[in-house]
Amino acid sequence: MPDIGALLSPSTVAVVGAASDPHILRGRIMHVMGGHPFKGRVYPVSRSSDEVMGLKAYKTISDLPEVVDLAVLIIPAKFVPGALEECGAMGVRAAQIITSGFAEEVGGDGGDMQSHIRAIATKYDMAVCGPNSEGFANMALDFCPTFSPAVDDPDTPLLPEWCNENHIGVVAQSGGMGFAFYDRGRPKQLPFSYVITTGNEACIEGFQLVDYMLDDGNTEVIVMFIEDIKTPEIYATVAEKALRAGKPIIVTKIGHSQAGQRAAASHTAALAGSYSAYNAMFERYGVIEGRDIEEIVDISSGFSFWKDRLPKGKRVGIITGSGGAGGWMADTAVAAGLSVPPLDAKTRALIESHLPSYGTAQNPIDGTAGAIREVGYPNLMKMTAASDEIDAIIAIASARNAARYEPELEQLTVAAHEAEKPIVFNSYTMPKPEGFAVFGRAGFPVFTNMRNTAHVIACMADYRAFRENFLKRPTIGSTSEKPTGVSEMLAKTDGALTEYESKKVLKAYGISIPVEVLAKDAAAAQAGAAEIGGPVALKVQSSDIIHKTEAGAVALGLENAVSVGAAYDQVVTSARAYSPNADIQGVLVQPMARPGREIILGINRDDAFGPMLMVGLGGVYVEVMRDVVFAPAPVRPEEAKAMLQRLRGVALLHGVRGQPAADIKALVDLMVTVSRIASDWRNEIAEIDINPVLVHPKGEGLTIVDALIVKSKPG
Amino acid sequence: MPDIGALLSPSTVAVVGAASDPHILRGRIMHVMGGHPFKGRVYPVSRSSDEVMGLKAYKTISDLPEVVDLAVLIIPAKFVPGALEECGAMGVRAAQIITSGFAEEVGGDGGDMQSHIRAIATKYDMAVCGPNSEGFANMALDFCPTFSPAVDDPDTPLLPEWCNENHIGVVAQSGGMGFAFYDRGRPKQLPFSYVITTGNEACIEGFQLVDYMLDDGNTEVIVMFIEDIKTPEIYATVAEKALRAGKPIIVTKIGHSQAGQRAAASHTAALAGSYSAYNAMFERYGVIEGRDIEEIVDISSGFSFWKDRLPKGKRVGIITGSGGAGGWMADTAVAAGLSVPPLDAKTRALIESHLPSYGTAQNPIDGTAGAIREVGYPNLMKMTAASDEIDAIIAIASARNAARYEPELEQLTVAAHEAEKPIVFNSYTMPKPEGFAVFGRAGFPVFTNMRNTAHVIACMADYRAFRENFLKRPTIGSTSEKPTGVSEMLAKTDGALTEYESKKVLKAYGISIPVEVLAKDAAAAQAGAAEIGGPVALKVQSSDIIHKTEAGAVALGLENAVSVGAAYDQVVTSARAYSPNADIQGVLVQPMARPGREIILGINRDDAFGPMLMVGLGGVYVEVMRDVVFAPAPVRPEEAKAMLQRLRGVALLHGVRGQPAADIKALVDLMVTVSRIASDWRNEIAEIDINPVLVHPKGEGLTIVDALIVKSKPG
Repeated sequence: MPDIGALLSPSTVAVVGAASDPHILRGRIMHVMGGHPFKGRVYPVSRSSDEVMGLKAYKTISDLPEVVDLAVLIIPAKFVPGALEECGAMGVRAAQIITSGFAEEVGGDGGDMQSHIRAIATKYDMAVCGPNSEGFANMALDFCPTFSPAVDDPDTPLLPEWCNENHIGVVAQSGGMGFAFYDRGRPKQLPFSYVITTGNEACIEGFQLVDYMLDDGNTEVIVMFIEDIKTPEIYATVAEKALRAGKPIIVTKIGHSQAGQRAAASHTAALAGSYSAYNAMFERYGVIEGRDIEEIVDISSGFSFWKDRLPKGKRVGIITGSGGAGGWMADTAVAAGLSVPPLDAKTRALIESHLPSYGTAQNPIDGTAGAIREVGYPNLMKMTAASDEIDAIIAIASARNAARYEPELEQLTVAAHEAEKPIVFNSYTMPKPEGFAVFGRAGFPVFTNMRNTAHVIACMADYRAFRENFLKRPTIGSTSEKPTGVSEMLAKTDGALTEYESKKVLKAYGISIPVEVLAKDAAAAQAGAAEIGGPVALKVQSSDIIHKTEAGAVALGLENAVSVGAAYDQVVTSARAYSPNADIQGVLVQPMARPGREIILGINRDDAFGPMLMVGLGGVYVEVMRDVVFAPAPVRPEEAKAMLQRLRGVALLHGVRGQPAADIKALVDLMVTVSRIASDWRNEIAEIDINPVLVHPKGEGLTIVDALIVKSKPG
Repeated sequence: MPDIGALLSPSTVAVVGAASDPHILRGRIMHVMGGHPFKGRVYPVSRSSDEVMGLKAYKTISDLPEVVDLAVLIIPAKFVPGALEECGAMGVRAAQIITSGFAEEVGGDGGDMQSHIRAIATKYDMAVCGPNSEGFANMALDFCPTFSPAVDDPDTPLLPEWCNENHIGVVAQSGGMGFAFYDRGRPKQLPFSYVITTGNEACIEGFQLVDYMLDDGNTEVIVMFIEDIKTPEIYATVAEKALRAGKPIIVTKIGHSQAGQRAAASHTAALAGSYSAYNAMFERYGVIEGRDIEEIVDISSGFSFWKDRLPKGKRVGIITGSGGAGGWMADTAVAAGLSVPPLDAKTRALIESHLPSYGTAQNPIDGTAGAIREVGYPNLMKMTAASDEIDAIIAIASARNAARYEPELEQLTVAAHEAEKPIVFNSYTMPKPEGFAVFGRAGFPVFTNMRNTAHVIACMADYRAFRENFLKRPTIGSTSEKPTGVSEMLAKTDGALTEYESKKVLKAYGISIPVEVLAKDAAAAQAGAAEIGGPVALKVQSSDIIHKTEAGAVALGLENAVSVGAAYDQVVTSARAYSPNADIQGVLVQPMARPGREIILGINRDDAFGPMLMVGLGGVYVEVMRDVVFAPAPVRPEEAKAMLQRLRGVALLHGVRGQPAADIKALVDLMVTVSRIASDWRNEIAEIDINPVLVHPKGEGLTIVDALIVKSKPG
């Protein structure tokens, strides 16, 4: 295992390519490092200089007086493999490659050089970060092998003077973005443990660094900027470990919009962009997605201050001296999915006994600025937090001038310390750094963005609820055996299975399919219809005709033998006209389904993450509203239920306006089983569409109207 | 007409209640005023002091050496009416009442005192702002009769040294919020003309102040914080005037949520109007709604810099030195409704000839930080803006250290001056004020919030498109006469009209209703069914039974005389069981409707704004998705079309996946006519429900299945 400790917390460091000129990157990195009191030994390595910034420089790594823990490489790309080889041979345990010009440059030999680097790192089991990276910062060690301007001010300590212990670790593939989180968070007095920018991730991947942070005891909240996840298994292991440890991961994954949708046979595959798989993988482990730099900084701030006392629900009390700000925040909170309930009568009476006659503790609790100052935020917080109606508190302030809050500092500190529910400040004026410092020192985050303020509370409540449910789940038992015969069923074709064949697979897994008959001629269809009884549907079965309706190969609502006979001839004729060379295996005779809530269920195999289960409200609404959700297969029943809850139209399943509630249990069972099929045959099955499923009222099950399984392309 | 000029731009001012002690509000206001070089004459009026801050003080207004233009009142509430009366009698033209303790205080005599104030203002035709206000600031005059800390620093000029001429005027009912816009915008180098906080708006309303700003030549962009609109007619007139003048109004209206409404009610004694009506009124005049302080400041900034060159569409080019930031911004842009199209081949080749080999001009245009610096933002902007594929440009920068952009200042200034398409900067690091200043001086807004950056472009494009369409509309001609007979139809009942009666009203306006028969007994129903032909529906008609289905008073799909006869008895029996005392006027026999896209159409009369037309996708989806939109009645055809475009499920009307497009023209005609009915009878009709309307395929019209008109409560 590569020694990530040697990379991030070295005692001895060589900077290969070091220079004194602060106008070039090779010099900037020395100046940035020199601006912070790192206690380790730093050796410049330079071909051209004997001395760099007052330090004796060495010609090569081999010349160094000791074997260093870490080599920082900032030399032209073509020299990197040789230098890395030299490091490996010398016994250097880790390297940080700043140099760019590798796989990110399309068309040159950068890709080959990057492969070479990876091979060397593997050979020597070195912890190699980069290339094409902006370096990193380890705040505890005051160690900053980076040229980032975000840490170039020697007068600004990397950690604020007062900060809580829940440090934030940043891992970012983009150097600019990684240090931007720090640049935004530092003036807000947030404590960072690391900012690590990983560039091309040729060797060490982001989640390996997260894994290290989870163990090293100095990081409680993790922020990531992700361009891609190279090894899904590492992601899954580390994300689960973080969740179990209660250390939230807040990410952005870029590339939503560029995800081109590949041509796909099934409806499900067409609805799945590559981003839907990432989103599903994040949802599985409670990883929180942020939408912009500031939102991510604010979410991490909320967790940094309150991660041990997350809200039990989404009911907020709003304390304000400005009625306008309170009302606006209430609207904003509701828009973010929070509620702003009236306080209970007892709490309300207690608070109002402290407010002037025109104040109100209805919620927002508004006593005008003067009254708020007289009663004090700490008192109001304490009284409000005591209400059982409230899970969290937003205190609104004008934190522009910190001085006016200084006298309350001690009481504020006690209030934060004793609070059992999270309390955050929103400032409608822009605080100076001292304003953030006063509140931060007392134990409160200050947000300046109203939407973020509300959203942070919602994220914290969601995380707590998700984690508690996750920890309650039994650990996965041994997977049951695959049913017999399915292997042969799937072997029949290289392309799409017919509906009849597809349903056989479902049946083998115990999924109930209405009695249906595969007829080879009109007479057999008539006999089948008689056997089934009631109106029937006919559907031509051919692996070559996936979209049967489009081919005119379906007839519905056939009431008697005459119409069945006529329809048989008609659908076969249409199918032949549509696809003259299609191999027609027969015509499926099936009962017309009872009405039910239309659902689309499917599987799409993501190239990176494997099979993804999709569920959505069927019919034209899936097209128009795109109200579908994904989760990695297999899913557990509770995950399937949670997927349904994420549908915007979930109320349709619970029954609205005289419509009965749907049989959600039956639907959940089907989702679990279909996801198991996809998981059992992850190499064989590329796509599944079960569309539509008609879910009948509670207790009455569901009917699978159509099914399609598409095999993976061989090879 | 009250002289608002005397209020906002006085030459002579009395401050009644003035004090020297900066720790009380009466002293703070003097210190704030004294901190800015106002050139007018200021007279303190004080009962207790002969001198205030070095100025001779007078005992009463009558003692002043001249009749002042403006009296600022900051004395206990009970003395305000007397002082105002004194001002009026002296000929003072305007008063700014800071004092609180009026209608916002529930339960005391504040409401009566406020009425008294209004009466005095009317009597003397004085321009009175407040009470319960934080005062205002007139930046051009350096005049700040306010105690707001936002303008209390004498070392910070009210206007930045460099600023463009498109000044931003703020009008806010909340003092804290009004000055918060300034507090946030000033460090971003935004030029404000006024910040006016209006408190209870006992006399002058916010939109009257906006009207003044539209004329005084010093304000091009307007920001408002609204708790309520007191006179809808003033709103409509001023909002239209602003739109015609191309001076955008950006608002927040608080009280969307129940909790928000509580705050509004308790704060200003104003009942918050129902939000959907406000939203509809804003949509009608292109008024832009912002969601939080920072978003509103950023939107106003975008307009302030680029209002004369708004984007013609929503296609953005993104110029970045950080690939990560560019990719993230592209995602953010798409999420905001923008597109990030590839540049045309010619532009791309031209730009790439300036970039290093690994750069790309695909869009985002990404050349790495070094390359960007070498080629320069101005060159890249110019080349990108030349592409016909692009309507606006987002340039991404790290504006933390302004110094690095100083050398480019002149070129940047030229680029901004010559640009025909708007260009904005997004900084991923947090700029110092100098950073905002460098870019602002050159002519570019700098945004730090990624979502706002994208949203501002979208708002500017929407505003331009909306305004251009609005200006193209013919002016409203004379309203056509009301059809005869409708007055009598509406006079029939005080409550709900039956479906039969309601449809008569629709018919009188030329709306096509299927042939139907009101039967008084089973035989008449059978005869009616025979006359209509085909399957029919029966519906009991009674003003006392509004929800017929719930009452079992409806029978559907009756195919022959026997079933019609039986159903007649059954529906009447059910109706009597449901409502024994109901006055049953008969049973309506109507043909079963052909299938169509289900739509709900309706009118709801808002207490403040009058009748609002609602349209939505019908069926359970209206319940679940709440996909409905409102517009004030009457609507023009183009407004009705725009309403449909705002439905999330609008694609259902345009036809999806083999479903035909619906007859949108017929639906638009119906919307226009129904809105006209509501407008013609705005005093008589409280509600209309046309639910469902089945809209048939294009060219085939629509069928009104049910209709309900509810009369206004008399008196």
